[in-house]
Amino acid sequence: MRITFCLTDTNPLPWLQGFQAAFPDAVIEEWARGSTPADYAVVWAPPQQLFDEQTALKGVFNIGAGVDALAKLRLAANVPVVRLDDAGMSVQMAEYVCHAVIRHFREFDGYEADAAAGKWSYRKPRSREDFPVGVMGLGVLGERVSRALTQFEFPVLGWSRSAKAVEGVRCFSGSDGLNDFLAATRILVCLLPLTPETENILNRDTLSRLLPGGYVVNVARGGHLIDEDMIALIDSGRLAGATLDVFRTEPLPAAHPFWKHPKITVTPHTSARTLRDESIAQIAGKIRALEGGADIGNLPGVVDRKKGY
Amino acid sequence: MRITFCLTDTNPLPWLQGFQAAFPDAVIEEWARGSTPADYAVVWAPPQQLFDEQTALKGVFNIGAGVDALAKLRLAANVPVVRLDDAGMSVQMAEYVCHAVIRHFREFDGYEADAAAGKWSYRKPRSREDFPVGVMGLGVLGERVSRALTQFEFPVLGWSRSAKAVEGVRCFSGSDGLNDFLAATRILVCLLPLTPETENILNRDTLSRLLPGGYVVNVARGGHLIDEDMIALIDSGRLAGATLDVFRTEPLPAAHPFWKHPKITVTPHTSARTLRDESIAQIAGKIRALEGGADIGNLPGVVDRKKGY
Repeated sequence: MRITFCLTDTNPLPWLQGFQAAFPDAVIEEWARGSTPADYAVVWAPPQQLFDEQTALKGVFNIGAGVDALAKLRLAANVPVVRLDDAGMSVQMAEYVCHAVIRHFREFDGYEADAAAGKWSYRKPRSREDFPVGVMGLGVLGERVSRALTQFEFPVLGWSRSAKAVEGVRCFSGSDGLNDFLAATRILVCLLPLTPETENILNRDTLSRLLPGGYVVNVARGGHLIDEDMIALIDSGRLAGATLDVFRTEPLPAAHPFWKHPKITVTPHTSARTLRDESIAQIAGKIRALEGGADIGNLPGVVDRKKGY
Repeated sequence: MRITFCLTDTNPLPWLQGFQAAFPDAVIEEWARGSTPADYAVVWAPPQQLFDEQTALKGVFNIGAGVDALAKLRLAANVPVVRLDDAGMSVQMAEYVCHAVIRHFREFDGYEADAAAGKWSYRKPRSREDFPVGVMGLGVLGERVSRALTQFEFPVLGWSRSAKAVEGVRCFSGSDGLNDFLAATRILVCLLPLTPETENILNRDTLSRLLPGGYVVNVARGGHLIDEDMIALIDSGRLAGATLDVFRTEPLPAAHPFWKHPKITVTPHTSARTLRDESIAQIAGKIRALEGGADIGNLPGVVDRKKGY
């Protein structure tokens, strides 16, 4: 068995060592132009050439939850693409989103500014009934985040392409349900996959439909959000602000207005990091299952190439 | 029926109106020297004189969870003291503590400083196994906080005076269990009642027993913590920092070193605020039960005067 690796922006060495330990008899190598055809590829944002040359792949494993970078490439229709299925990411996402939502709801940024000025301040307690949180995308991450938010007694709404049910979450679906979902949401959390259908979904029209004082938490992809639409709505007072972890260009360019906007919190795509040990264990387990004759269609995380996630 | 109110630092008017609405036929009034003896008193940090004069009280209702201010006064031993039992406070406490713990664990303060400098930074993901959280005090608030933390998959430990069991929490108790609890804790959350036994419990000795890089979250009372002991341990690098919501003197005096310490986050006693509507409903319900013949010993929140909470 031969496994090839192409991990843009990631040190491949510990990955190669981890897989070699999992499969002592396999050939584990970094991909390069002209490499011998491999059985499996483990990738993050690989070049088109990998797929042009590697035509015997029985599976492509993406070391992230989002496969939008792969979707832009030409892959043979019969090559199965598998994304990470949680692998320690959902708890990180729940942490990140709960921290951002609580911080906004409880005005901790304001208290911190007051404290920096040596001011013992009083702010009227807010009612969480006035801060319904709407989660777009109810996959593994979205569902975990929704459940975490219900624990803090926020009214939680969910929206997904196809109808889903999550306990304690008021669920909407499809384009028919989108307006009702937005109109009942104050804090909007984006956890959608990036596909042609969801690109630019956070725009002047949709963001204007949120409850007054709306707040945006984007932890999906920069391509979901039209940056200048959101900034205009914040500057006009229609939206209260945003916490953003993902951007159209990463690293976020130095001149981008998000950096210095007083109502926008920027983090460097850190909401849910790929955890190497968990990911190696998960992918190795799936390769073992496939080598043992399992049907790839039964593995969690297999991408529906038509839907794009 | 006559109910007297003495709410230091709190506007009494909406409380009086709320109780008048709940008991239209009762006399609801603010306490003053020489007031007619009342059946019940609703108080926050009242003066000794109230208890010297009001000798017919069937119940004293404290509009907070902590009764340490009352414990310093001389009350007849047979006057039942009732504290708020949750009344919307536990979810606020869970929010506050989870926000502080996640913020420290995920280094969001550091990311924020980087972002303020326009820096797209990389920090190595930390393992939550290295950040066990220990909660001191497993009453209504401590138990809720512990449960909320387990959801984020932190190892959670609990310590209480008498042995308790909380699902998913490794519980210690009594003075025998304290050292083992501290030695296994990295992030220490104080939710203890303030009593002669717990005063100064966060001192050089106890705080030195935490795992290296210990962190303190105090949401109980300022009297639990010896300020200068903690500052010395932070400055020596033994502790990583603290988030403090309560202080020996409140408002925290302008000259106190906590204000400007770079590793200490100060908030103005805002972790769990008394919510008026919920509190009025709870206390009115208890008064109704007592007037209907209920035994006060069966009401939740009745203070054990010997234990002091």
